[in-house]
Amino acid sequence: MRKLAVVAFGGNALLRSGQKGTYAEQLANVEQTCESLCNLLKRNYNIVIGHGNGPQVGNVMLQHEAGRAKGIEAMPMDFCVAETQGSIAYMIELGLRNVMARNDIQRDVVTLVTQVAVNQLDPMFQNPTKPVGPYYTKEQAEEFASQTGAVYKEDPKGNGWRKVVASPKPTRINNIKIVQQLATAGNIVVTVGGGGIPVVEESDYVRGVEAVIDKDLASALCAVQIGADEFYILTDVPKVYINFRKENEQALDVITVAQAKQYLAEGQFAEGSMAPKVRAAIMFVEHGGKECIITEAGQLGNPNCGTRIVR
Amino acid sequence: MRKLAVVAFGGNALLRSGQKGTYAEQLANVEQTCESLCNLLKRNYNIVIGHGNGPQVGNVMLQHEAGRAKGIEAMPMDFCVAETQGSIAYMIELGLRNVMARNDIQRDVVTLVTQVAVNQLDPMFQNPTKPVGPYYTKEQAEEFASQTGAVYKEDPKGNGWRKVVASPKPTRINNIKIVQQLATAGNIVVTVGGGGIPVVEESDYVRGVEAVIDKDLASALCAVQIGADEFYILTDVPKVYINFRKENEQALDVITVAQAKQYLAEGQFAEGSMAPKVRAAIMFVEHGGKECIITEAGQLGNPNCGTRIVR
Repeated sequence: MRKLAVVAFGGNALLRSGQKGTYAEQLANVEQTCESLCNLLKRNYNIVIGHGNGPQVGNVMLQHEAGRAKGIEAMPMDFCVAETQGSIAYMIELGLRNVMARNDIQRDVVTLVTQVAVNQLDPMFQNPTKPVGPYYTKEQAEEFASQTGAVYKEDPKGNGWRKVVASPKPTRINNIKIVQQLATAGNIVVTVGGGGIPVVEESDYVRGVEAVIDKDLASALCAVQIGADEFYILTDVPKVYINFRKENEQALDVITVAQAKQYLAEGQFAEGSMAPKVRAAIMFVEHGGKECIITEAGQLGNPNCGTRIVR
Repeated sequence: MRKLAVVAFGGNALLRSGQKGTYAEQLANVEQTCESLCNLLKRNYNIVIGHGNGPQVGNVMLQHEAGRAKGIEAMPMDFCVAETQGSIAYMIELGLRNVMARNDIQRDVVTLVTQVAVNQLDPMFQNPTKPVGPYYTKEQAEEFASQTGAVYKEDPKGNGWRKVVASPKPTRINNIKIVQQLATAGNIVVTVGGGGIPVVEESDYVRGVEAVIDKDLASALCAVQIGADEFYILTDVPKVYINFRKENEQALDVITVAQAKQYLAEGQFAEGSMAPKVRAAIMFVEHGGKECIITEAGQLGNPNCGTRIVR
């Protein structure tokens, strides 16, 4: 029996800060990540990929805003996330197909456009905090707010006003059984792109919502629901650290869920960076997962890589 | 045994000319098409959907162009098609889920981001004719042409210069076996969006190309390869006509492939409109398909609907 792993990585695996973001750059970046994924494939893993879309959906929203001046309707968050699911998955599929060919690996790669349900009563909807898209003047922000009901807040750095959306918990992944079947059959499956297209499922109606689902949490839910043996969260450091960048900095090899919670309570992990990854790791292990490994892509396949969060 | 049908419809099932193209309008439009699809589902068909993306990819290219002024790299055709596969499929999935709930139909809808291979020696690449994206001045067009190798031609109506791309024949649909498995298991499968993301598959490398694959031809190839019983091409008229809009206009009920070829040779069907649909129908029937039905969405499920192209 092949082991089944879910691997989550950020949208910056394609679009890196400091680059222009050309097509060629994005392809070169994604091929590098795919080379690392091959280390799991060579160890005969089945793999599901959950990816982020932070830089991409930001660009799409800016393009929609710029297109509005040319008379093209700007679309809400859920639509924009769907666009990035198509384009990012395409680049991942191209990268994987080419890297696998070089490594003599025969697997198919298949991407599902994926809706992820959130609860409309999620308390996060009462306090949207995640800034997305372009900056506006106060007047523009007030106009859009009154037109659409969206919430705009002033940027603390004084760059203007931005839409803020909620980051609710994922509650259900559409087509998750199909993800499981395809992955178990040996296909590499790309799903929950950007955390999934956020939808609210009422008793008789599904509708998109403006929200951002954390891609690590969505990937954790995916890993739980398909019964993954391992859950990898890729980041830009080889391990998780306590006292990060202090003189008593310490890399963590293996920690229990209880230790992870303790460190979180101590504020050891930065919000918007390591903290959500550790929470996703806890979520996976608490719902029956064996271990979650937080590491950098280059370490994949190395048996003692990263920080392992266990029961 | 359920019958298996491929249904192809245009991107204008969502984005209609004469509307602003708001999110609400697109959803209302797609729900209308999905209501018609339900007539096939009620007759217990398995369904694969192939859709176009003409108006959508036009908008995406204009948004990329507008975003370029804000410092965001504009992406090539293959990337833009991938974006529209995500967003259009999302709207179709939402529409179908909601319409099926109202009609008490239990099916899952699943979308595959789909690459479609073309042959780099396809003669169409020697003579790109399909205009796409924004209009430019002659100077801009010459600059982009020298930067990217793309071909720009002057618009015959004098609106400026536009990129023209080839419309090569689809030769292979990636993951077609998975499409077949999922559809045969009763899932409604959305694939080959916009004709598919155009790629060239060399012996050891896959790469995207700037091209537009005809969505009816890609859907026909899909229908052949999954062994569909029927292939529906939706359009905005109930049947195919000869002497269209003349006083001796005649609706066609059933025609053979030989008759269809004869009418094509006579120039009975407009290029860019009915002619490519009739060619896709011929392709399906010549490769083993039983019958192709060209009709409007509202006629679906009506046993004698449309024009039937048979052997």
